[in-house]
Amino acid sequence: MPHIDLPKEYPGIRSLFTFRPETAAPLNALVQTLLHNPHPTLSQGERELIAAYVSGLNVCKYCASTHGAIAKHHLDNDAALVSAVMANPETAPISDKLKALLKIAAQVQIGGKQVSSKTVEAAKERGATDIDIHDTVLIAAAFCMFNRYVDGLATWAPDDDAVYDKIGKQRAEEGYLTAPFKVR
Amino acid sequence: MPHIDLPKEYPGIRSLFTFRPETAAPLNALVQTLLHNPHPTLSQGERELIAAYVSGLNVCKYCASTHGAIAKHHLDNDAALVSAVMANPETAPISDKLKALLKIAAQVQIGGKQVSSKTVEAAKERGATDIDIHDTVLIAAAFCMFNRYVDGLATWAPDDDAVYDKIGKQRAEEGYLTAPFKVR
Repeated sequence: MPHIDLPKEYPGIRSLFTFRPETAAPLNALVQTLLHNPHPTLSQGERELIAAYVSGLNVCKYCASTHGAIAKHHLDNDAALVSAVMANPETAPISDKLKALLKIAAQVQIGGKQVSSKTVEAAKERGATDIDIHDTVLIAAAFCMFNRYVDGLATWAPDDDAVYDKIGKQRAEEGYLTAPFKVR
Repeated sequence: MPHIDLPKEYPGIRSLFTFRPETAAPLNALVQTLLHNPHPTLSQGERELIAAYVSGLNVCKYCASTHGAIAKHHLDNDAALVSAVMANPETAPISDKLKALLKIAAQVQIGGKQVSSKTVEAAKERGATDIDIHDTVLIAAAFCMFNRYVDGLATWAPDDDAVYDKIGKQRAEEGYLTAPFKVR
């Protein structure tokens, strides 16, 4: 049960956005910019994979399931690819650059000071730009916020994969600035 | 030295805001809403203390020094009060409600699932509203992001307390939406 009185028809962060629209606006603008808007070198699917992977490391069921589903919809509905990245990026069928960026993301998840020059240099050697590295660090850091926000207030996470798939389709197509649908 | 090529005249998060204005806009809007805009029950000083305290737990020198200085400027320039909270909220001369909220913030810093019903109930018994609890969790979560962002890219943190005091005065008076001054 949530720690505060939240609207029951929306799960996860959507119940918090409804409870507190003042903070919902900048949070949705942030995730829209980081994950959905055009990017010079990282696809929407790659950026959603970083978000889903960090949410998995933080064991945040709602965020990992939601962003995993959004990534899947961006990546030709390839659920096996998303599962492989969540399980172990090193052995997943993704680019060497994305593998290197996910290593940076994993260091950010532990703590900012954990990001090493060696890991950053390895990403640069595999073609990562300064903007790729910046955005990877900020996506990983942002999901350390979103995951804590969602679980810190004990929001409700659906058990039905079909719900996440529906959310994933909506967000992949519409981005983060449209109204959510009611889950119950 | 920062992990990416950042403008040298601004320290900490300001160098990142200059590097990537696309993400600076929603991040500044978030912190303006959480920490500076009017709040029904938490003062600006109290909210800055939560931000500074979490940044201290994350050992983020730039954020802890900056938000400690902003808190001081909101709280009658009482540097001893800010130091007492940073060292141990339980023995600091603050309200029982704020002590209870800082316990929630400390749990969020470890992880979202660490926030216990017992800690939340204790805050409610000491007068915390649902909005107080929501905003405390989100401020603590947001600084788990900002601290990782600032340290994950190895930004430059000034050693001179006078610099933080000047930043603190500016942000306490102006909020977060005005241009920063150049530090060097």
